[in-house]
Amino acid sequence: MFELIAFAADDTLWHNETMFQATAKEFATLLADYHPPEWIEERLFATEMKNLRHFGYGIKGFILSMIETAVDLTEGRITGPEIATILGWGHEMLQAPVSLLDGVRETIESLAGDHRLMLLTKGDLFDQESKLARSGLGEYFSAVEIVSEKNARTYSTIMARHRVTPQQFLMVGNSLRSDILPVLEAGGAAIHIPYVATWAHEHVNDDVMNDKTFTRLENIRALSEFLARSYTS
Amino acid sequence: MFELIAFAADDTLWHNETMFQATAKEFATLLADYHPPEWIEERLFATEMKNLRHFGYGIKGFILSMIETAVDLTEGRITGPEIATILGWGHEMLQAPVSLLDGVRETIESLAGDHRLMLLTKGDLFDQESKLARSGLGEYFSAVEIVSEKNARTYSTIMARHRVTPQQFLMVGNSLRSDILPVLEAGGAAIHIPYVATWAHEHVNDDVMNDKTFTRLENIRALSEFLARSYTS
Repeated sequence: MFELIAFAADDTLWHNETMFQATAKEFATLLADYHPPEWIEERLFATEMKNLRHFGYGIKGFILSMIETAVDLTEGRITGPEIATILGWGHEMLQAPVSLLDGVRETIESLAGDHRLMLLTKGDLFDQESKLARSGLGEYFSAVEIVSEKNARTYSTIMARHRVTPQQFLMVGNSLRSDILPVLEAGGAAIHIPYVATWAHEHVNDDVMNDKTFTRLENIRALSEFLARSYTS
Repeated sequence: MFELIAFAADDTLWHNETMFQATAKEFATLLADYHPPEWIEERLFATEMKNLRHFGYGIKGFILSMIETAVDLTEGRITGPEIATILGWGHEMLQAPVSLLDGVRETIESLAGDHRLMLLTKGDLFDQESKLARSGLGEYFSAVEIVSEKNARTYSTIMARHRVTPQQFLMVGNSLRSDILPVLEAGGAAIHIPYVATWAHEHVNDDVMNDKTFTRLENIRALSEFLARSYTS
């Protein structure tokens, strides 16, 4: 029996990447007079990657990277009102309603009855805490861990801190790179529930997964049945 | 004997507020053609306060607030190169060397020999972890807690999580508002070591402190002697 089930947050419990991608499209439209949209999105992603080790993950860093890209790609001709438009997107993103994925509320409610559940997410501390509060799911999680990076060492530290062995730990998430591979490396079990969109930074080539043992579910609703089966088998 | 001694980070272990204030002065100079410097700094602070509940603390939010203030105060006439200048300050701040305050290294090194030390800071998770790593002090702290807000409830949660009673907990910090008042409210002990500059947001009126019991030290070097005295008395 798993003593601790940890869930990723963005794109596992609630929609997130679709909002970033929609904003990136608006950004490409804003600069449409200067460059073709594909090139703008490519440059934005390159700026994000360059800034990642100083900004970390999250909306504030994304907005700063859009502003930086806008100045670069317009060779400084970007205007004050256009900058204000980008800042406005940032405020909208930070205040966007938290939209739960299908099946999340019922599944989390039901599992919380007989499991210790943890929210385990990387990203901006303030923003993630705010989203959890707005999600209405806070009461079901007995622990919340917000980390700056999800690697095998992070997972081992968290297992130790919460006094479970790797065999007692199950991670559920949408990102092969952050939620599955490092958990397996740390000796835990992992369930992959793909989201409709994947941030390019989280992309993992199929062949990397070939020799890995983990479960893939199409929808979080299937989790209760998966657990029931694994406990009786 | 205190079982756990927690230290604030910014302006307790290393310089921070002076860097923000220096950047705010540069910002006022950048917009000097539009408004007097006092007014610019006042508007910047007002924008920071308005954004605090969406941005949280930290450099990224500060930079976004500077850009927003620049667009507002120039009525959109701010130029791309000026925006690039502000973004450049952000990158400089995020990569600035961590400059320890006088006496910090020796004191922390010495206390770590016979106490459990914790770093307890609010602000941006990614930035604070990066500063701790760059400070070279990481090995002396047996725990690091980075929280989105320091209130009495936060302190009680942390005491419980680290299995100490309020009587066994000592907080050392520069901010009356964040490091002293809420710790006393939670039943712990607190030592105030004022920093040369205080962010206006952290200001507390003197009369609020009149009936509070805490110790004020001029320099962190005095901490070892304070502890020796309290254990023998």
